[in-house]
Amino acid sequence: MKTPPLLTDLYQLTMLQAYLEGGLTETASFEFFVRRLPPRRGFLLAAGLEQVLDYLEGLRFGEAELQWLRDSGRFSADFVDWLAAFRFTGDVDAMPEGTVCFADEPILRVTAPLPQAQLVESRIINLLHFQTLIASKAARCVLAAPGRLLVDFGLRRAHGAEAGLLAARACYIAGFDGTATVEAGRLWGIPVYGTMAHSFIQAHATEEEAFERFARAQPDNVVLLIDTYDTEAAARKVVALAPRLAAEGIRIRAVRIDSGDLAEHARRVRAILDAGGLAETRIFASGNLDEYALAKLAAQAPIDGFGVGTRMDTSADAPYLDCAYKLQEYAGRPRRKRSEGKATWPGRKQVYRRHADGRMAGDLLTLADEAAEGEPLLAPAMRGGRRLAATDLAAARARARAQLAALPEGVRDLEAPAPYPVAVAPALRRLADALDREAH
Amino acid sequence: MKTPPLLTDLYQLTMLQAYLEGGLTETASFEFFVRRLPPRRGFLLAAGLEQVLDYLEGLRFGEAELQWLRDSGRFSADFVDWLAAFRFTGDVDAMPEGTVCFADEPILRVTAPLPQAQLVESRIINLLHFQTLIASKAARCVLAAPGRLLVDFGLRRAHGAEAGLLAARACYIAGFDGTATVEAGRLWGIPVYGTMAHSFIQAHATEEEAFERFARAQPDNVVLLIDTYDTEAAARKVVALAPRLAAEGIRIRAVRIDSGDLAEHARRVRAILDAGGLAETRIFASGNLDEYALAKLAAQAPIDGFGVGTRMDTSADAPYLDCAYKLQEYAGRPRRKRSEGKATWPGRKQVYRRHADGRMAGDLLTLADEAAEGEPLLAPAMRGGRRLAATDLAAARARARAQLAALPEGVRDLEAPAPYPVAVAPALRRLADALDREAH
Repeated sequence: MKTPPLLTDLYQLTMLQAYLEGGLTETASFEFFVRRLPPRRGFLLAAGLEQVLDYLEGLRFGEAELQWLRDSGRFSADFVDWLAAFRFTGDVDAMPEGTVCFADEPILRVTAPLPQAQLVESRIINLLHFQTLIASKAARCVLAAPGRLLVDFGLRRAHGAEAGLLAARACYIAGFDGTATVEAGRLWGIPVYGTMAHSFIQAHATEEEAFERFARAQPDNVVLLIDTYDTEAAARKVVALAPRLAAEGIRIRAVRIDSGDLAEHARRVRAILDAGGLAETRIFASGNLDEYALAKLAAQAPIDGFGVGTRMDTSADAPYLDCAYKLQEYAGRPRRKRSEGKATWPGRKQVYRRHADGRMAGDLLTLADEAAEGEPLLAPAMRGGRRLAATDLAAARARARAQLAALPEGVRDLEAPAPYPVAVAPALRRLADALDREAH
Repeated sequence: MKTPPLLTDLYQLTMLQAYLEGGLTETASFEFFVRRLPPRRGFLLAAGLEQVLDYLEGLRFGEAELQWLRDSGRFSADFVDWLAAFRFTGDVDAMPEGTVCFADEPILRVTAPLPQAQLVESRIINLLHFQTLIASKAARCVLAAPGRLLVDFGLRRAHGAEAGLLAARACYIAGFDGTATVEAGRLWGIPVYGTMAHSFIQAHATEEEAFERFARAQPDNVVLLIDTYDTEAAARKVVALAPRLAAEGIRIRAVRIDSGDLAEHARRVRAILDAGGLAETRIFASGNLDEYALAKLAAQAPIDGFGVGTRMDTSADAPYLDCAYKLQEYAGRPRRKRSEGKATWPGRKQVYRRHADGRMAGDLLTLADEAAEGEPLLAPAMRGGRRLAATDLAAARARARAQLAALPEGVRDLEAPAPYPVAVAPALRRLADALDREAH
């Protein structure tokens, strides 16, 4: 999870050299925010701050990178020396992980000498974008299947190793029960789930033999995959096997169905298990699931838990967020980008959230030093290049649970969410107008 | 790019322990293939083999992982000892990177003792899936904008660090000219492009000052971003600045437009530059581009190059492939999974490709030991755990270029591609039928 120091866009380095040559090294504030929510999304769930802080604390240029930069012929010796001595010494204010957030709201602010704050742009976006994307998708799955066991199965089709790991983390923050990805368990203590693949069944002469061998090898973790050949026939084999295992104290905890009409199979399998005295054996389903499928299955089928993979780990219906990390203030003066369709709210900002009757009632976007009614969402996370506190994954998860519970009902809708009110404070509007007038 | 050894699904480990306890350690062949192409895709471009070979050669379990497995209480001491001594000793046959391929065709085959071949499933899929996904998307961009400079801009919204790096590599194989991601340049020698962001302009009091400072800092790489405030006004500032820079021997190579109606801005900017004596100054465009936008812009607008980012690096219109790594033979006997909608062609297979009049004319899926007309696409890549040759990125790129040029015209269509003929050899059909009869 260590970030290579040259994991950045070339333009960061070319800009930096120009900044340093021009003496543009005063304090800058950049904010990361999402410009607009993707279709069907009513809210986002902020995630990824821990990895940003790790990155900022650990960013160093090694000799291999410095030599490559020298050999490229693009940069001055002074600039490469500056990189050799680089340490991030700035401040970070951010929404804690697990915070529900909306378009235009700053999720994270970096305040540092301009070259420092600029250099880290590419990786900060890369980290916050992806985990926020996945936590937001996973939160929808959690809302769609209340009370069901939810496990991340997405590693294989996640976009690379880091995506697989960070997706496991993001969906755990959003309320998933665990992941199939072992390394995510080792890194972050996330509960790990898993039993067998179809190849295990296929490698044996018969399903019965495969089931029995697995039960003896993993007696505390007997979840049998029953769809390799004929799902209902396999369920009957499970019923036939159960007494023999029970005599040895081995309980069949669950069966898993991974193909076909999951609701229909689950109903038939439930009937077979119940009639065979296995009312305690749970049904677990997987295969092409997302929040839309979960909502239907949770309402219609006797399924106790779900493995959710590809469509969550790639956020398949909205695989990216329209987000940015923008310069909002430099040398004490607010800045405003006015590119068509991409204008930003200038200055360092804060978000205040009001509640009414236990639900979120509206957010207010203000300048950072304004006071307002409600709870401020951005909090100090790093000062002078040092993080203020270790990230607590359990706390992030608890925060997400509480905030999802406080979402207005209409905003949670999976297909056509109601807009959540985010107002812009008058002082911020006046500042934006003043900057526009000044430019004309 | 080193793979953590526990970057795998838990079920691989639980299955392995059962295999080892049951003595299921004979030779197995697994094949990786795509079940069906996503909507609007007429072909795929295989990529990712180099990272798979790296992974297989380097896979070792360290003491930290072994201790975590012991502490989990899930595994026997014998099994953890087996992992401690693990080395991959199997064979790999694969399509070389840059090979055009289609649904049902094995892209890679692993032949190894069953526990070895099983353990590596999750990461092999994770690596081949992603690079093949992105190389295929990038190949469409290359076909859409022939003769234009194409640069990968996608790091920031790629799904994590590895996705950003491997996307740069995959799109270079597919025919992109380079990437903005510096580390991809260092790792693989991919040409790196980039100049400035909007923040650079904003940090200065005026655009003129920003342009001039940048030109002096990077005199050989003057590409000026002109859409921060008013695109055409900025183009006129470029014209005004050019003679002063020319007097010092500095040439303005290009301007970049990143927002608004790119075609319309490009036409106006082209006229301004031409009228100002800057006919040699190129126009580079970026912002929300993909193959569909490229096809339109390449046909209509005087744009010389494109930065393609988010939509390519996430393969936004098809962010995953329906792919699998399936057991096809164990202990000398072919296997067939028959799950609904997921049945596979059994046995170890080869793909033969015929050409006619310089174009690809049809593929034939056969058993691996059958002879057939045409060129066999899978070649030995690893024997006994050692790769047979270093990967040559330039050769992969040349292969992709040649194969894309040989694609039938209809198969290249971006919206409604013609199906490419992939036939199944009679012997393979007979084998599948025989296995089905045997099972009933």
